[in-house]
Amino acid sequence: MREHGMLADQAAVRRTNLARVLGEIRRPGAHSRATIAARTGLTKATVSSLVAELIERRLVRDRGLRRDGAVGRPGRLLELDGGSAAALGLEINANSLAVRVVDIAGREVFERRVGFDAMHATAAHAVDELAALAGEGLARMSRTGAELVGVGVAVPGLVEVTSGSVRYAPNLPWQDVPIAEWLRVRLKLPDGVPLVVENEANLAALAEFRSGTAQSTPDLVYLTGDVGIGAGLIVDGRLLRGSDGFSGEIGHIPVDPGGATCGCGRRGCLETKIGLAAAVRAIAPDMDGMDGDPEELAALLRRRADAGEPRALAGLDDIGRWLGTGISIIVNMINPGAVVLGGYFAVVAAYLVPAAMRELRARVVAGDAATCRIYGSAFGFTAAVRGATGVVVEEVFQNPVRPRMSALHPPNMSPSP
Amino acid sequence: MREHGMLADQAAVRRTNLARVLGEIRRPGAHSRATIAARTGLTKATVSSLVAELIERRLVRDRGLRRDGAVGRPGRLLELDGGSAAALGLEINANSLAVRVVDIAGREVFERRVGFDAMHATAAHAVDELAALAGEGLARMSRTGAELVGVGVAVPGLVEVTSGSVRYAPNLPWQDVPIAEWLRVRLKLPDGVPLVVENEANLAALAEFRSGTAQSTPDLVYLTGDVGIGAGLIVDGRLLRGSDGFSGEIGHIPVDPGGATCGCGRRGCLETKIGLAAAVRAIAPDMDGMDGDPEELAALLRRRADAGEPRALAGLDDIGRWLGTGISIIVNMINPGAVVLGGYFAVVAAYLVPAAMRELRARVVAGDAATCRIYGSAFGFTAAVRGATGVVVEEVFQNPVRPRMSALHPPNMSPSP
Repeated sequence: MREHGMLADQAAVRRTNLARVLGEIRRPGAHSRATIAARTGLTKATVSSLVAELIERRLVRDRGLRRDGAVGRPGRLLELDGGSAAALGLEINANSLAVRVVDIAGREVFERRVGFDAMHATAAHAVDELAALAGEGLARMSRTGAELVGVGVAVPGLVEVTSGSVRYAPNLPWQDVPIAEWLRVRLKLPDGVPLVVENEANLAALAEFRSGTAQSTPDLVYLTGDVGIGAGLIVDGRLLRGSDGFSGEIGHIPVDPGGATCGCGRRGCLETKIGLAAAVRAIAPDMDGMDGDPEELAALLRRRADAGEPRALAGLDDIGRWLGTGISIIVNMINPGAVVLGGYFAVVAAYLVPAAMRELRARVVAGDAATCRIYGSAFGFTAAVRGATGVVVEEVFQNPVRPRMSALHPPNMSPSP
Repeated sequence: MREHGMLADQAAVRRTNLARVLGEIRRPGAHSRATIAARTGLTKATVSSLVAELIERRLVRDRGLRRDGAVGRPGRLLELDGGSAAALGLEINANSLAVRVVDIAGREVFERRVGFDAMHATAAHAVDELAALAGEGLARMSRTGAELVGVGVAVPGLVEVTSGSVRYAPNLPWQDVPIAEWLRVRLKLPDGVPLVVENEANLAALAEFRSGTAQSTPDLVYLTGDVGIGAGLIVDGRLLRGSDGFSGEIGHIPVDPGGATCGCGRRGCLETKIGLAAAVRAIAPDMDGMDGDPEELAALLRRRADAGEPRALAGLDDIGRWLGTGISIIVNMINPGAVVLGGYFAVVAAYLVPAAMRELRARVVAGDAATCRIYGSAFGFTAAVRGATGVVVEEVFQNPVRPRMSALHPPNMSPSP
């Protein structure tokens, strides 16, 4: 037993060291076995052995001799073998499905978004369609010769992260949907290849934190701007999930007890003031009630505001004011350094932010000292699916020895259970 | 330079190892040099040297041979030399000042709370009074022979933690008060002896997390129930301070845009519904407008409810309902595992919690899965000052070589600057 335990420890130490070496090679700059040994404190022999394994696993490759005129014997330079492994990101939303493939160097290989009325489809049908879209991504991946390192799935609902089940999705007819299990079967994903299901706002927040407009702000909040309004919270550089994984549900904060009835059955929720449906009702009542594509609706709102339509300008100012009220609650509670607006908010951010900032300044107890900046996301509607690939790519850098899957065999297109 | 760096590294390693050994000795159970070596992986010689230093620093002492019949040569048992070092906790509130002394084993040496109308005093006068109260605590400490390991100060306001300045205290006439600096001078505290100023709700949350009713709940929220309402947030076992240290300001969340004007000038803040002043106005209007002691007012509310006065029962039910609304915002946003009610809430918790739970269940988006428990604090009005001593005691266990101060010389009672 003791013997076994020691072997397990040794394997864990080697895995940690593989991750350290891979992390060094990922950093900007020129890396040789010697520079890595110097920076990690590992012996050159150990580094050589670790690099050999990373090359064998096709995560790293030699890129030739250094030519930077440095003193000493030239070492062979190393770089990520980015194209050999890729992550699949999926997203399901009230009105659309999306797929994205990025290699582990972060290069986008494939991206596609299609309209899909998930609000009026069964969960099983939605997951079938998502698996079909995933198949397109895997087919593209297989043509590049990349292996699949894992799948990330963004959903607009409350996720039990351990099981990958969607407990409840306010704007979908979903209740306890084991989406991880269903997708694993449909994609024939072997055990050990990670499949991560996570709330869309959480994934979008991670994407913003890693590479968005306010990147590396340790305390960052992302707000989805869609049919539903949710928040992804980064606190001290880490995702705040809460005790059951159900954080960030700000759309149903009561802001007006005498206000309109919300889709959730309660009155005066923030969503009734700033959700996409409320925006369309206020600004483009001619489009009200249509289950349009959120991107198209957002573009429409933007066009009307750009044209100077008084109704659009007044409507967006009003939404900006309520948005500022909502953000003030977040700021007074958790005092983030930045709030990033996603979805339709990002498209019309120029019209929302002035009113939101006015309201925020008036409502933040700590005053200007705690009044954070508000940014429109540069990722628009794609932040969540970017986060979905991002979490899976990070898993590779945390644990380079995880199993991967050849992307060659097509997903299971058999009917849903 | 390199040489110097290595010496600094060695000192840091030794400090870390001193903390590890001290941490082991703090744990329940019987500890000898041999058991500590086995658990830490340090050699017995290293452990002996570290223990010798801890004994010399009077943090640890021998307590004789082990008598538990264990196999092998009996080792001398070690225990915390708790009485040799103590922490001073101070608290300033709208209506009172408090001092508390605990030794590093957590035993209370001294506790005192006095009424003080901080709302109508200058900050300098308040700090003078606080320093005088601290002097009583230090005098008691010196009679026990303990050295001072540091001072923690709880304030009902927004604190810049790095400078120890109170930027703003909603219910005090304070604006940018350098309380850490003032107290350091008045207490003649040498550099190196920590003086930590922190928001009262944050300190209370830490006290609850360490040893309260819901102790060790990784995601825990503490609510102050006083003139002002604030929250201390523990996320994943750590205090959530936010980007500028201004988290937890929930008292001014707008819950009723048509509601009463708040002391802050805004309308319908949560504080106008559930603050102590609102409670007194609703339940004991005969006492309204009196700057009574919060503990006495809370006891009065409790007596009237216990006597079955309809006005008291209806009033507390109404407050419970709004409290539930406020807690639902917290739960939907950060999904804690427990909410602990402090201050007057704790005194009348039995009358508040049923209504609060009803409201919470109706408003939590994730439903029962995320509906956390609500507890009345067992610490009543003392949670913050307990937290104030707690943070300083923890500093000792993090860094056992920090300077300490003899508690013998009296604090500086010279007039305020």
